[in-house]
Formats: sequence, structure tokens, C-alpha cells
Amino acid sequence: MQTLRLTTTEKCAMVNITAEVKRLVQESGVRRGLCLIHAPHTTAGIAVQEGYDPDVARDITRALNEQVPDEGDYQHAEGNSPAHIKSLITGTGQVLPIEYGTLQLGRWQAVFFCEFDGPRERTAWVQIINAEG
Amino acid sequence: MQTLRLTTTEKCAMVNITAEVKRLVQESGVRRGLCLIHAPHTTAGIAVQEGYDPDVARDITRALNEQVPDEGDYQHAEGNSPAHIKSLITGTGQVLPIEYGTLQLGRWQAVFFCEFDGPRERTAWVQIINAEG
Amino acid sequence: MQTLRLTTTEKCAMVNITAEVKRLVQESGVRRGLCLIHAPHTTAGIAVQEGYDPDVARDITRALNEQVPDEGDYQHAEGNSPAHIKSLITGTGQVLPIEYGTLQLGRWQAVFFCEFDGPRERTAWVQIINAEG
Repeated sequence: MQTLRLTTTEKCAMVNITAEVKRLVQESGVRRGLCLIHAPHTTAGIAVQEGYDPDVARDITRALNEQVPDEGDYQHAEGNSPAHIKSLITGTGQVLPIEYGTLQLGRWQAVFFCEFDGPRERTAWVQIINAEG
Repeated sequence: MQTLRLTTTEKCAMVNITAEVKRLVQESGVRRGLCLIHAPHTTAGIAVQEGYDPDVARDITRALNEQVPDEGDYQHAEGNSPAHIKSLITGTGQVLPIEYGTLQLGRWQAVFFCEFDGPRERTAWVQIINAEG
Repeated sequence: MQTLRLTTTEKCAMVNITAEVKRLVQESGVRRGLCLIHAPHTTAGIAVQEGYDPDVARDITRALNEQVPDEGDYQHAEGNSPAHIKSLITGTGQVLPIEYGTLQLGRWQAVFFCEFDGPRERTAWVQIINAEG
């Protein structure tokens, strides 16, 4: 299992980590298998979404902010319950196929680390499973 | 990895693809392992939900439409940001167990391709991983 | 594949099942691989979230109740459409890495069975995949 390190620069943002994940798959030498990307955090998530127009990530981030308002009847003392809720909605992990030695994504898809309680130092775990004989 | 092709007929709909996924698992001959179903799209998703009463899928689709209204302060030029947001909420992939050569689902569960920006030609990827010696 | 049995005691609640999942991983003897946790239900889910302060789970449960109100224009005759919608938002499965014979979770992460239509007898499936030669 390998660890990607990233520094987020905003409270809420989607950081495109596709290139780093693809590189790890390439370096693993695995031809066919699974790639698990996991955010080991409770106020962040992993999503596969459009990586071409950055307005998509901005619209998603804003929509989540509207659905989960900063102020509310929250009891968690740290005051970041909205970030936990967004993490649950997004999910903390994603499994993607590896074929022909390459991470498989749809034409417009990218892998995003979703920050909901930044800015911070964060990590994403990447585990690559070989499914060949 | 195999590709299912489907044609969606509505803007938003949940299409039951359980039979096709089960058939691919059967044909693979894999007795024990994992089945990854992935929608290689950014305005669609994969969900496991009730397949018995079609009103469940209709109620879910309608609830997502209410949570993510068509009109809003969206910047993405293509105008389909609500579909991207619904895709993030739903998730683009699902991993299910294979045991005894059969896709394992709960009694009322079915696999759905969730269309949020149709009608369109779509694909779903199915990757079957053998976990036996 | 193994089955965890649990009895939920509330309509909506997040039940921490980390200890049981960790035990199954330990007992499997698998050093490196994947652990799939799947809720074979359509009104429940699996989430990885903070397990330290129980107020987090309470805040998440309450936020979902607000986002998906009990009363609405639902057609499903059983009357539990909100539970199905929460299940779709949460997701029914989660894949986690196994390394060094141990389930890998972030420092504050725990595995939760999310009940949305309890109280009930429920099950969670745990499938452990060996990824070593």
C-alpha cells in the first residue's frame, strides 16, 4: 500500500490526484487487477468525477455546501460536523479497474481527493491488487 | 473487463442491470471473487437498491431531483451540473462478492445503472476478479 | 464470505462494527488483501466515519433525516422510501485494505452499519480476499 501526500489550500475543494494514482499503477507493473484509493480521514472523501472543466468540481463543492449548511443543530464539539456529513455523502473510498497495465477511467473521469475541512496536510492510500495468475 | 451497453430513455432513471451482471459472472466461471461494476461516466452512477417495486427507484429519482434542483447558481457551461452532483452522491462504482459462482446480493437488492443526464447511449464496465488459488 | 448479525434498536442509527470486522480479518490469516463489507439490505448502508465521538454519528443521522424528510410525495407502498434514499446516499458497501494481517483504517475511522428503517435484525457480509502469491 502506498501513501500520497497532499496539502489542501481551501476549506472545501476537490483536488485532482489522477496523475499520481496512474503513476503508482504504472510503477507497480500490475497488468490486470484492482486499484483501491482510500482517504484515511473522516472529513474528506474520494470521488470519480469530471476532470476537464474545473467548474464541475466548483459546482459540486458549492452544492454540497448548500445541502449541508455550516450552521445547524450540531452537537459534535469540534464544530466540523458538516465536513463529516459531506464525507459520508461522498464516500471515503473508490475501487477502479486496472487493465493492460493502466488505470481504467471513463473519457472525462478523474480521481479527486475531496477536502471538506481544510486547509490541511492530508494523505490518500493507494492499494494495487494483482489479479493475474 | 467487459462492457455492457445500454440506451437510457429518460433524463433521470434507474435501469436494472442485475440480469446482465449475473450472466457475466456465470460465464466467467469464477467461483469466488469480486465483481466491480463501474459507470465510466460523470453524469451517471451505479447503485444497489430494491429491484422489486419500481416505485422505490422512482421515489429515489424524484428525491434526488428535489435535493439537486435543475436551476441553481451553476457555472459549468454545459448546464448539466445537477447531473454531476447526483453522480457524486450516488457514486460511480460498486464492488460485490462472488461466492459459489454466483453474484451475491441481498434478497431485495438489484444493481442499477443510474442515469442523470439522459436519454443517451451508455456503458457500464464489469470486471470480475478471481480470488481462488 | 462471513455474516455478522446485529440487532438495531432505533429507527435510524449508525452501529460501530469495527471490532467484529477486525476480528474476522485477523482470523482469516490474510496478510495482504481486500476486505469487502456489504449490507445486503435496501434500507441500510455501510459507512466509514469517525468512531471516537458518538456525537458525529448522531449529527450525521440527524442531517440525513433533515435532507430526506419522513413525509413527502412518496409512492412506494411500504412507506419507507426515505430509508431507501438514505441507503443510496450512504452506499451499501465499502472496500478496505488489509496490510500486515490487519484491517487498515485511518486513525479516527470506524466501520459503521447504518440503519435507516429499524429496529430490526440485520446482517452485514464480510468477504476477505487474499492478494498474496
